[in-house]
Amino acid sequence: MSDLKHHIATAFDRDLEGIQAQILKMGGLVEAAIHDSAKSLETRDEELAEQVRKGDLAIDEMEESLNEEAARVIALRQPAASDLRVVLSVMRMSANLERIGDLSKNMAKRTTVLAQMTQINGSTTALRRMARDVEMMLKDALDAYIKRDEALARDVIERDADVDQMYNTLFREFLTFMLEDPRNITSCMHLHFIAKNIERMGDHVTAIAEQVIFLASGEKPEGVRVKEDRTSSDPALSADL
Amino acid sequence: MSDLKHHIATAFDRDLEGIQAQILKMGGLVEAAIHDSAKSLETRDEELAEQVRKGDLAIDEMEESLNEEAARVIALRQPAASDLRVVLSVMRMSANLERIGDLSKNMAKRTTVLAQMTQINGSTTALRRMARDVEMMLKDALDAYIKRDEALARDVIERDADVDQMYNTLFREFLTFMLEDPRNITSCMHLHFIAKNIERMGDHVTAIAEQVIFLASGEKPEGVRVKEDRTSSDPALSADL
Repeated sequence: MSDLKHHIATAFDRDLEGIQAQILKMGGLVEAAIHDSAKSLETRDEELAEQVRKGDLAIDEMEESLNEEAARVIALRQPAASDLRVVLSVMRMSANLERIGDLSKNMAKRTTVLAQMTQINGSTTALRRMARDVEMMLKDALDAYIKRDEALARDVIERDADVDQMYNTLFREFLTFMLEDPRNITSCMHLHFIAKNIERMGDHVTAIAEQVIFLASGEKPEGVRVKEDRTSSDPALSADL
Repeated sequence: MSDLKHHIATAFDRDLEGIQAQILKMGGLVEAAIHDSAKSLETRDEELAEQVRKGDLAIDEMEESLNEEAARVIALRQPAASDLRVVLSVMRMSANLERIGDLSKNMAKRTTVLAQMTQINGSTTALRRMARDVEMMLKDALDAYIKRDEALARDVIERDADVDQMYNTLFREFLTFMLEDPRNITSCMHLHFIAKNIERMGDHVTAIAEQVIFLASGEKPEGVRVKEDRTSSDPALSADL
């Protein structure tokens, strides 16, 4: 009986390892998508942007197969509560990764449009810096997941506040550019969409880090779960300019 | 043995019924949040907006408790593959509902800000119409879920194209208002955020309808899953105005 139990535990562990390897691979593709889409934006590299757009299909397919594999493992191995929690967290994480992939694809699409327009000084460099921060956060969140490193996960969540701050600064900058010269409006709207997309990527990375904390400690981190879009009540935006 | 099996099946069915009742209740709260936030925007009812903002906590808590209940049922009842699929779909649906609740809350926040500004003619009425369409789509998606009505779910997905179309029209209108008079920029940015949020609500309702199709037919609907933000490559927006 003890032997049988051991055998069952091992089979589940092997399955789980497979799933975890898959989520890391998916994470790697998503990190590259963030990196390449931001780079294509700054360097106006339409070919690279096209690669990101096409590459998103592979990310979507990985989410599908991860979900199928996770459901198969649950049905087949019937894991105990704590093991079940790990498998369910992987399903949630893959959904977050898939969304980050989508947001990168959307950024890459705007590269193609923005490449035709007058550049707004320095803005794509600032966006790329913001994207790099999110990329590093994702890398650390995945490391924290593998090591069940709660401290690192909390660090990732704290860094998301900086990304939010960058977004708010850029939002105000774009508004200023639009007010200065209405010919900037179209490109600033696109740039603003990109900034918002990167900010949302940060939220998805935060959600992944929260899963890590939940797995490591069994507790949901308080007060970080519901993300706020600060522009919705920013006093600087409530003045009738 | 056959008696025991019957007993187990019944217990699972009872649990599932409880979970499904909870998701419908959550759906009802989210429908009301969409309705009230759009109404507060059009009628500049800051008190109603405040209610929506506060009410979002209850929606968040329902998602938590639904997830816990679903995990409990999986661990306790160890459902077969097809039953497991139903439970997992409920978890996904609750995540979509929670996001729609967040987006409604965000809309309600902007009501407070926009109430201080000059009204842009007719825009809040158009936004409320768009929100009403999404609200009806959600109602139908939940009905389709209960009845496992694949045709109704497909109808919901088709109607999302109209919502996307409304968004694209509004996006162009807001751009025009901004170009006409730079003093409109701040309020148009807020209005545009709201339009985008409603459009995203439609995407989440579509995801729920897709879950229904998946449950009813065992197949993922082709070609509707990945939602496109058409402004990212809209030729009308690529001209350097």
